[in-house]
Amino acid sequence: MYSFKNDYSEGAHPAILNKLIETNLVQQAGYGEDEYSTEAKNILKQKLNNPDAKIYFVSGGTQTNFLVIAALLRPHEAVISADTGHIFTNEAGAIESSGHKIIPIPVKNGKIKPEDIACILKVYNSLNTVKPKLVYISNATELGTIYSKSELSALFEFCKSNNLYLFMDGARLGNALTAHDNDLRFSDISTLTDVFYIGGTKNGALLGEAVVFNTSELATDFDYIVKQKGALLSKGRILGIQFLELFKDDLYFSLAKKANDLVAKIINAAKEKGYSFLAETSTNQAFPILPNTLIEKLSQQYSFYVWEKIDKDFSAVRLITSWATDENMVDEFVGDLKELGV
Amino acid sequence: MYSFKNDYSEGAHPAILNKLIETNLVQQAGYGEDEYSTEAKNILKQKLNNPDAKIYFVSGGTQTNFLVIAALLRPHEAVISADTGHIFTNEAGAIESSGHKIIPIPVKNGKIKPEDIACILKVYNSLNTVKPKLVYISNATELGTIYSKSELSALFEFCKSNNLYLFMDGARLGNALTAHDNDLRFSDISTLTDVFYIGGTKNGALLGEAVVFNTSELATDFDYIVKQKGALLSKGRILGIQFLELFKDDLYFSLAKKANDLVAKIINAAKEKGYSFLAETSTNQAFPILPNTLIEKLSQQYSFYVWEKIDKDFSAVRLITSWATDENMVDEFVGDLKELGV
Amino acid sequence: MYSFKNDYSEGAHPAILNKLIETNLVQQAGYGEDEYSTEAKNILKQKLNNPDAKIYFVSGGTQTNFLVIAALLRPHEAVISADTGHIFTNEAGAIESSGHKIIPIPVKNGKIKPEDIACILKVYNSLNTVKPKLVYISNATELGTIYSKSELSALFEFCKSNNLYLFMDGARLGNALTAHDNDLRFSDISTLTDVFYIGGTKNGALLGEAVVFNTSELATDFDYIVKQKGALLSKGRILGIQFLELFKDDLYFSLAKKANDLVAKIINAAKEKGYSFLAETSTNQAFPILPNTLIEKLSQQYSFYVWEKIDKDFSAVRLITSWATDENMVDEFVGDLKELGV
Amino acid sequence: MYSFKNDYSEGAHPAILNKLIETNLVQQAGYGEDEYSTEAKNILKQKLNNPDAKIYFVSGGTQTNFLVIAALLRPHEAVISADTGHIFTNEAGAIESSGHKIIPIPVKNGKIKPEDIACILKVYNSLNTVKPKLVYISNATELGTIYSKSELSALFEFCKSNNLYLFMDGARLGNALTAHDNDLRFSDISTLTDVFYIGGTKNGALLGEAVVFNTSELATDFDYIVKQKGALLSKGRILGIQFLELFKDDLYFSLAKKANDLVAKIINAAKEKGYSFLAETSTNQAFPILPNTLIEKLSQQYSFYVWEKIDKDFSAVRLITSWATDENMVDEFVGDLKELGV
Repeated sequence: MYSFKNDYSEGAHPAILNKLIETNLVQQAGYGEDEYSTEAKNILKQKLNNPDAKIYFVSGGTQTNFLVIAALLRPHEAVISADTGHIFTNEAGAIESSGHKIIPIPVKNGKIKPEDIACILKVYNSLNTVKPKLVYISNATELGTIYSKSELSALFEFCKSNNLYLFMDGARLGNALTAHDNDLRFSDISTLTDVFYIGGTKNGALLGEAVVFNTSELATDFDYIVKQKGALLSKGRILGIQFLELFKDDLYFSLAKKANDLVAKIINAAKEKGYSFLAETSTNQAFPILPNTLIEKLSQQYSFYVWEKIDKDFSAVRLITSWATDENMVDEFVGDLKELGV
Repeated sequence: MYSFKNDYSEGAHPAILNKLIETNLVQQAGYGEDEYSTEAKNILKQKLNNPDAKIYFVSGGTQTNFLVIAALLRPHEAVISADTGHIFTNEAGAIESSGHKIIPIPVKNGKIKPEDIACILKVYNSLNTVKPKLVYISNATELGTIYSKSELSALFEFCKSNNLYLFMDGARLGNALTAHDNDLRFSDISTLTDVFYIGGTKNGALLGEAVVFNTSELATDFDYIVKQKGALLSKGRILGIQFLELFKDDLYFSLAKKANDLVAKIINAAKEKGYSFLAETSTNQAFPILPNTLIEKLSQQYSFYVWEKIDKDFSAVRLITSWATDENMVDEFVGDLKELGV
Repeated sequence: MYSFKNDYSEGAHPAILNKLIETNLVQQAGYGEDEYSTEAKNILKQKLNNPDAKIYFVSGGTQTNFLVIAALLRPHEAVISADTGHIFTNEAGAIESSGHKIIPIPVKNGKIKPEDIACILKVYNSLNTVKPKLVYISNATELGTIYSKSELSALFEFCKSNNLYLFMDGARLGNALTAHDNDLRFSDISTLTDVFYIGGTKNGALLGEAVVFNTSELATDFDYIVKQKGALLSKGRILGIQFLELFKDDLYFSLAKKANDLVAKIINAAKEKGYSFLAETSTNQAFPILPNTLIEKLSQQYSFYVWEKIDKDFSAVRLITSWATDENMVDEFVGDLKELGV
Repeated sequence: MYSFKNDYSEGAHPAILNKLIETNLVQQAGYGEDEYSTEAKNILKQKLNNPDAKIYFVSGGTQTNFLVIAALLRPHEAVISADTGHIFTNEAGAIESSGHKIIPIPVKNGKIKPEDIACILKVYNSLNTVKPKLVYISNATELGTIYSKSELSALFEFCKSNNLYLFMDGARLGNALTAHDNDLRFSDISTLTDVFYIGGTKNGALLGEAVVFNTSELATDFDYIVKQKGALLSKGRILGIQFLELFKDDLYFSLAKKANDLVAKIINAAKEKGYSFLAETSTNQAFPILPNTLIEKLSQQYSFYVWEKIDKDFSAVRLITSWATDENMVDEFVGDLKELGV
């Protein structure tokens, strides 16, 4: 049974494990003050072309969202998110647990637009309601779609005009930036958002996300929040090493591209067979709408999520690949998709 | 400059790194549902002789304390702790950030007694005050001391009679249980506390603490809390592997004992030279009271904390060893301690 | 300019003010331990036919919802509410500020049904999501509608089968129970919910809501929560006196009925003129759909909320009456409604 | 049995009750937008000589402290308070429930000094600890003592130099400002603190405290916090009327002075008899140290708190007077104090 359920079924890229071994007995300062973390941060600031950026390494995506939002908002301030947003659907109420309401925008493809936010601002305009203060987006989105440069620029401009923070969840940022139809550069993210994070866990790391505040002022005392919420690792060196290896030679992007390319094989095969899709994606997720009979057959050899019932005969499924996905298994899956689907 | 500042200056025991490499590309379920975590939990339940225990792996000590206390207490309930307790002095207000007051007990040696708690209960007895509900202890304590079986039994009995939970912070539990003067067995911890954790980070792991609820009822929905506070790793396999390697053959205890033995050399040398101590310890921490002139000399070659000023000529310092400490460096330090101290 | 905007534009029923004066200099214990509060609670328990009920007097509706939900839920537990629910739309994120997500059910008439909740439970079924634990309803609802006995019974039964608390917001409970089509008795509320509150502020009191836990166990330590969140008045006597006067002779119900009867005049006049309604109501709120031209004319003499745009010519307005509404002004309004509406 | 236990045993000054009756049926906007509140705020700003002040009326003291601190602090920021401070000892963990640690300073007379704070800042200086950000003082203190102008100036200057807010709890501000040895004017409070509150409940009001932010910037969105925590009364007129009556003619100060003068009779009598005091007070509280035998006799006719055991024969008691205290009963008490004490 081969799994296409998620992009964290395997461990880490060997370069990272090797570096862990190589540096294992070198004494280092704790709590992220080690030299690997420092070096990784410097490389990132250089690649982002943003010397004023403040960077923090933490362990996971929910943790990152929880910390950033807790750090930026006052008690009565709220978050605007797509109703497909990870914070709204999949984080066990983490944001609310820090006291903040999430105001969802109903979306089809995982993306939000300035006019959606404008509608929210009209309703949430008195002290009977919470005060919207931060816009949360994901890139790639939870549906595998991406923001274009013009879309992101429009969002950021709208946020700035309306005194809102723009926060990008980059759990799959590598996949977004290496999508064939992407026109955003890595450094653009640093000029078109207030804060974002670079997902490591789903793209080659054992664990680890890099939070980037694009101005140092926004990051004021963020280290206190990280410590207070239990997110500061004693051996911060582990996280530094992940990002050092991923970014010293653009491994991060080549791994993400590989994942995109692998799922593209599945997407193309499904298109060839005439299947439609729940969302048009160019990153490492595919949401083909398949006959239930085919789904049943495929399920005997592959694990994946049945995402949404479409009608009595068809359902959308989700298939994910990663840097660690076995290309042979993708090819086998493609073969089965074509043959078993009558 | 060799460091005796803490027990997390190095990486992980090689057995753990090897296992990470060996299992790296095996696909596993996420979020702690992997087979290494399952196996590690089974081994722990067996060694604790407690099949009803519920075990969770998380990343760090502050995180563990934050999660356990948030899970067990209602909003108005408070924690009783020694004023040296890690949650009171060193966690950036983590416990208060989840809404709970910590009531400190002034102590000399890091340990608390039933009569200390009884005094608190007399004062905190109306709804003007918070309601004490959980007693937090550390073993080994932050001052390197340990609880004897009779001390722990008395505390637990008192807690049970007064409707209080007893929670043991075991960041250095291995050091406590392998101290030469310890009379608690590993399985005793499971019968003499309500909940405790087994520290991995400071004893051989890259990261990781194992929370043990001694009855399954107390653990109800703890997994929700772990997820909500951002503490659930996607690749939970990493944590499972740490504890699998540490406990499948008692590596955990041999590493801890090694650390204890190393610092004992320093303790003995200091005693030989006639120095006294801030606290009598038998675990991996030493608090000798040294002349400031000696401290200055030692500081040129070794890093360690000057813990407390004693008088104008003397200060207590803290020296810590771990499984990874270089015995040669301990011997050199011992030599310098003897020679430089005129 | 006469106001039909809300039911808290005036002060208190004279009986209450008289009692305040009469008892003003009698020394009483503070914090709700006064004899008026005790007597009022006894009367309520008797009228509710529930000697095991635990009753607390607090100041306002948002405060009540905030306290009850904070007291009953663990950190990861969530509230289910109609999307018209006061806690969802009008309380500035009070519930989220105590850490709990509200899961909204889209409704037309302010009411929710067991099948709505069942749908939520299907989606919120893993630890990625919060755990639904409490169902919040209002009676009368924010749209002036009421629950019948069979509807409430079905809801309560469903909640009990699914381990959910049922909490009724009774800010306008008096209006609901005196509606001409109501079939619930006051004491039914105590057997068909877990906890509810009796709104005083909108029905004769200067301020005050009575929280009723229908079993003493649910109320455990609620007084701590009241104190902790700043809701315990030093001079609790003030709140006791409100409920003593309102309930010693059923003043509460006669005031509510008067309000219902007054708005019924408006409803009948609107029906006579052929207008339709946003919601069919029998309590003290009316939501007629009127021509914008008429609304403009009426607005010159009366203040009220334009609730919702219906189409280019028509809007729904909200008109509210209370025990203190001047019947002459209602009659004038009715006259204007008939005459000005061409 | 006459009570000297507290200063909230009776209702409100008759002027307030009369005004409530007089205005009872006048329609007013809700939520503090009524004309009485507006007028009261204007009067206060004038008397404080601070047109930029922002004023809010809420119901009680714990509520006020809870709101102000929640509004001003970020999650990792903490409060410094005397260990006798109301927030530390008597508010059921309200401050911690909003996520903030209170760092206590041990004091004898209820007052804190710049050097006390300086000591705290030295210890709380890294991200292992919380970050002190607000200094909480009471005037009059919980022990009945007061701050002189030079003391308050020194504190405020220290706070400003160290980027700390200074917040004064004025539950008994009237008593402080009318003490015979006070040299602070009402308007000084507005220049020597960042925020303070004027206690109504203990000085003539049915309920109500007036929060004063001395600069409008500090008050940003405070109304949201008030609403969110359930502290915004629908009938805000009630609170406005309390402060309108108390301040339109300095009733507030004459009532406070009366209370001070009454307890002074007791203090003088105790001095005459040679008794000493737990604290030297000039406000409406007295803490004489009396023989236990005398305490027992007095307890048969008067209720008051036995505050602290001094030795086997003596205890300190607390006696409080208010504007409503019956002077005849004070005289009787004085007589009994002199006669019964052999």
